[in-house]
Amino acid sequence: MKGIVDLNSDLGESFGTYVLGLDKEVIKHVSSVNIACGWHAGDPLIMDETVKQAVSNGVAIGAHPGYPDLMGFGRRNLDITPKEARAYMIYQLGALNAFAAAHNVKIQHMKLHGAFYNTASVNPELAEAVINGILDVDKDIILLALSGTYIAKRAQEKGLRVAQEVFADRAYNTDGTLVNRRLPGAVIHDQEEAIRRIKKMVLEGKVTAINGQEIDIIADSICVHGDNPEAVNFVKFIRESLIAEGVEIKNLNEFI
Amino acid sequence: MKGIVDLNSDLGESFGTYVLGLDKEVIKHVSSVNIACGWHAGDPLIMDETVKQAVSNGVAIGAHPGYPDLMGFGRRNLDITPKEARAYMIYQLGALNAFAAAHNVKIQHMKLHGAFYNTASVNPELAEAVINGILDVDKDIILLALSGTYIAKRAQEKGLRVAQEVFADRAYNTDGTLVNRRLPGAVIHDQEEAIRRIKKMVLEGKVTAINGQEIDIIADSICVHGDNPEAVNFVKFIRESLIAEGVEIKNLNEFI
Amino acid sequence: MKGIVDLNSDLGESFGTYVLGLDKEVIKHVSSVNIACGWHAGDPLIMDETVKQAVSNGVAIGAHPGYPDLMGFGRRNLDITPKEARAYMIYQLGALNAFAAAHNVKIQHMKLHGAFYNTASVNPELAEAVINGILDVDKDIILLALSGTYIAKRAQEKGLRVAQEVFADRAYNTDGTLVNRRLPGAVIHDQEEAIRRIKKMVLEGKVTAINGQEIDIIADSICVHGDNPEAVNFVKFIRESLIAEGVEIKNLNEFI
Amino acid sequence: MKGIVDLNSDLGESFGTYVLGLDKEVIKHVSSVNIACGWHAGDPLIMDETVKQAVSNGVAIGAHPGYPDLMGFGRRNLDITPKEARAYMIYQLGALNAFAAAHNVKIQHMKLHGAFYNTASVNPELAEAVINGILDVDKDIILLALSGTYIAKRAQEKGLRVAQEVFADRAYNTDGTLVNRRLPGAVIHDQEEAIRRIKKMVLEGKVTAINGQEIDIIADSICVHGDNPEAVNFVKFIRESLIAEGVEIKNLNEFI
Repeated sequence: MKGIVDLNSDLGESFGTYVLGLDKEVIKHVSSVNIACGWHAGDPLIMDETVKQAVSNGVAIGAHPGYPDLMGFGRRNLDITPKEARAYMIYQLGALNAFAAAHNVKIQHMKLHGAFYNTASVNPELAEAVINGILDVDKDIILLALSGTYIAKRAQEKGLRVAQEVFADRAYNTDGTLVNRRLPGAVIHDQEEAIRRIKKMVLEGKVTAINGQEIDIIADSICVHGDNPEAVNFVKFIRESLIAEGVEIKNLNEFI
Repeated sequence: MKGIVDLNSDLGESFGTYVLGLDKEVIKHVSSVNIACGWHAGDPLIMDETVKQAVSNGVAIGAHPGYPDLMGFGRRNLDITPKEARAYMIYQLGALNAFAAAHNVKIQHMKLHGAFYNTASVNPELAEAVINGILDVDKDIILLALSGTYIAKRAQEKGLRVAQEVFADRAYNTDGTLVNRRLPGAVIHDQEEAIRRIKKMVLEGKVTAINGQEIDIIADSICVHGDNPEAVNFVKFIRESLIAEGVEIKNLNEFI
Repeated sequence: MKGIVDLNSDLGESFGTYVLGLDKEVIKHVSSVNIACGWHAGDPLIMDETVKQAVSNGVAIGAHPGYPDLMGFGRRNLDITPKEARAYMIYQLGALNAFAAAHNVKIQHMKLHGAFYNTASVNPELAEAVINGILDVDKDIILLALSGTYIAKRAQEKGLRVAQEVFADRAYNTDGTLVNRRLPGAVIHDQEEAIRRIKKMVLEGKVTAINGQEIDIIADSICVHGDNPEAVNFVKFIRESLIAEGVEIKNLNEFI
Repeated sequence: MKGIVDLNSDLGESFGTYVLGLDKEVIKHVSSVNIACGWHAGDPLIMDETVKQAVSNGVAIGAHPGYPDLMGFGRRNLDITPKEARAYMIYQLGALNAFAAAHNVKIQHMKLHGAFYNTASVNPELAEAVINGILDVDKDIILLALSGTYIAKRAQEKGLRVAQEVFADRAYNTDGTLVNRRLPGAVIHDQEEAIRRIKKMVLEGKVTAINGQEIDIIADSICVHGDNPEAVNFVKFIRESLIAEGVEIKNLNEFI
């Protein structure tokens, strides 16, 4: 194991007068941020401000495109065609790209949001369309995808750099998928336990599935949250625990 | 006078299932197209298709950003701040830029739409913000602006290339502004008369204002419309009349 | 068989500057209209104008609520909760209701649009929520639903008046569902054949399913279209053919 | 002076996953609430929940329509026509009305939001259109308008009941208009001073204008805010101070 990992968090999910997330706090503890592109959340002023904050904090930026569903925060599945998926990808990547250009940086990665993330992870046609959208805009963008999913494998085959994402607070099935949130044990509430699991994923490439079986997992990046002060403290705790263990926290561009 | 002029038309103003404009017809007769960016009109599928058509017809593409007002088609003034104007410019330029990249071309120019066009032409703070937005994204983009306006002058001062736009079917005041559409004589309905005026603007740099006085005018590009078959025929007539007079029709990148 | 049937058509599906459908033509030949409520199509000016036209043409008005997806015209499935379905129903019914009040009429019926129509027809939880939404607003509103569907039966059980809708140009499976549009034979292109089928549905309560078997069907209302001149002519033809056969064309309030 | 006043506050201005305002706190201290109708803020789920809370807290509900500008929270002026103003009024009144019906209550009043409030207060054509929109939907709805404005007078002439609104924390010009927020002294920061001014407005019908002159003012309702805990405490303080002075807090329906 390489002993290097990225910490990523969703940022810029405010909209107009509405504020969401402790962006200025969580950004201090992560290495990459996923910035909403104005569809499920975010607006041009917020995108501009979030890119600015990312630059001044020295973290890498990624696009975080979602479905055109502000009312549902991009969390409801919308039955789009592959052609739409590619076009939505291009549009949102482009919009964020322009703010990156305005701040003299480049987009490091793309991570889908919400229902788009879930569906495109496993639906081959949507996955293909999303990958094509990235390739059409900029071949150097890294795809940040759920570890072990179809889209991660397919993107590698098609020549994209791929970073595999794991979750600190979620249980895994033996096939590497996440346990459905509605099932018992799906969410790990014990922070010490979560940290032990993360270390094992990062240092040994293993995680204990919900049935007790140990499975292989690639952990290039850990998804963390800045929704509230407690969540931010947990991010800080994750970071410090990993560093104490000799793990280096680096953004994806430095090791993918 | 240089004897060269660009013909520009607004394209890609359909939305979802709604179709607007005879894009495939008018594109044959123009040299540059202004493509809606999904705010006052247009959506990602339409942007993709319109860029594709522009490439296959060999015409230059421009961004056509508008206010976030699909219901009003961007024609109603919205009292935005300069900060918002810059961010809206960056967002929409970026979105179109990504489709341009997907088709291996670059954005040639930016022309504002509707109420944004009118207001930013004369409001120094908005004009400054719009210019800064372009400069932030790509210094090579040409600003296509109403001939003789504040924004045209200011953009030149700030180092942007500027193309000055004239209208075939509109009367002018002696200060070079357009006669308000609500006033008598504001619109030139006689096509022969319109052609005579265009030739004079392009070949002599002069136009007869509504009070009969002859004034100076710079005509780098003529705005034409593809709303209906008659409009398309008029575009064809303008093109042929200019060519018959020895005027060359070229896109802005070739002579600005 | 009662020898009475309603002809319904979707109206008011324009939006802002975008025009869709030959509303003023088709309205002359139908007895009930389904008016878009501003979500998948329609806007307040168009709703006002469409209600006004319905009143002056003496046809009954119905609400035509859809998903919040103007870009997809409400045709893409959106995974909403039953709670959302009820609230979306109430909101859109209320909006149209106010325009009806402004024109001194009442909403006769409610017919869902597009993906909302398809999903709520068969999904018991969404069907229940939609029915509850109608009951919450006005118990006198008739539900216009696909003939024989779950939602039609359930609404009757819950005390709503229900009108069962059939299609002139679509093939049926033996269980009374429509043959998927992607399958061969799904759409009846021969107008004479379509008329024969309609007459049989209205006068005998029977339709020949795609496999040749004759099945029972309730035909309270026939869905017709005003998308283009040919479609409008077909509506006129349907109307005249039915009247020639002694069938009365009445709106739902007169016989449901 | 009648010694009766209403306390009104804007509620239901959350949207989707975004939370705004301490609705559940401030609702305890007011007599009427203005509920956003899904355009500048609010969505169907939130409207339903807010009406439900209003009913269970025994406060009267009002519609709070705004411009179609969620990104700007309805605070930016949008140059709409009178025809649009009337239609937007009808649409939003109707939507809220349906939620009121679902909870077996009626809309008591209508108060415009943000830029729509400011513009329609003084623009005769927009004022007329807004009043006509209310009359078209329900003649019993009270117009809650800025005290002394054109729209308040005109609505009374046209037969609407009108409640005149004052602000606790704002300075007044001698003509009864509010001092522009950008000018010094426009906002009263001293809560004791604000209370003294409110008492004088409610009990004596007088307020000291910014130049020291005492002017007449009608105070049927005081606009209060629930944005943060301090604001809610101030509302409680206003309420208690008025009651201590013998003023009765009642909703508009009880005394207008």
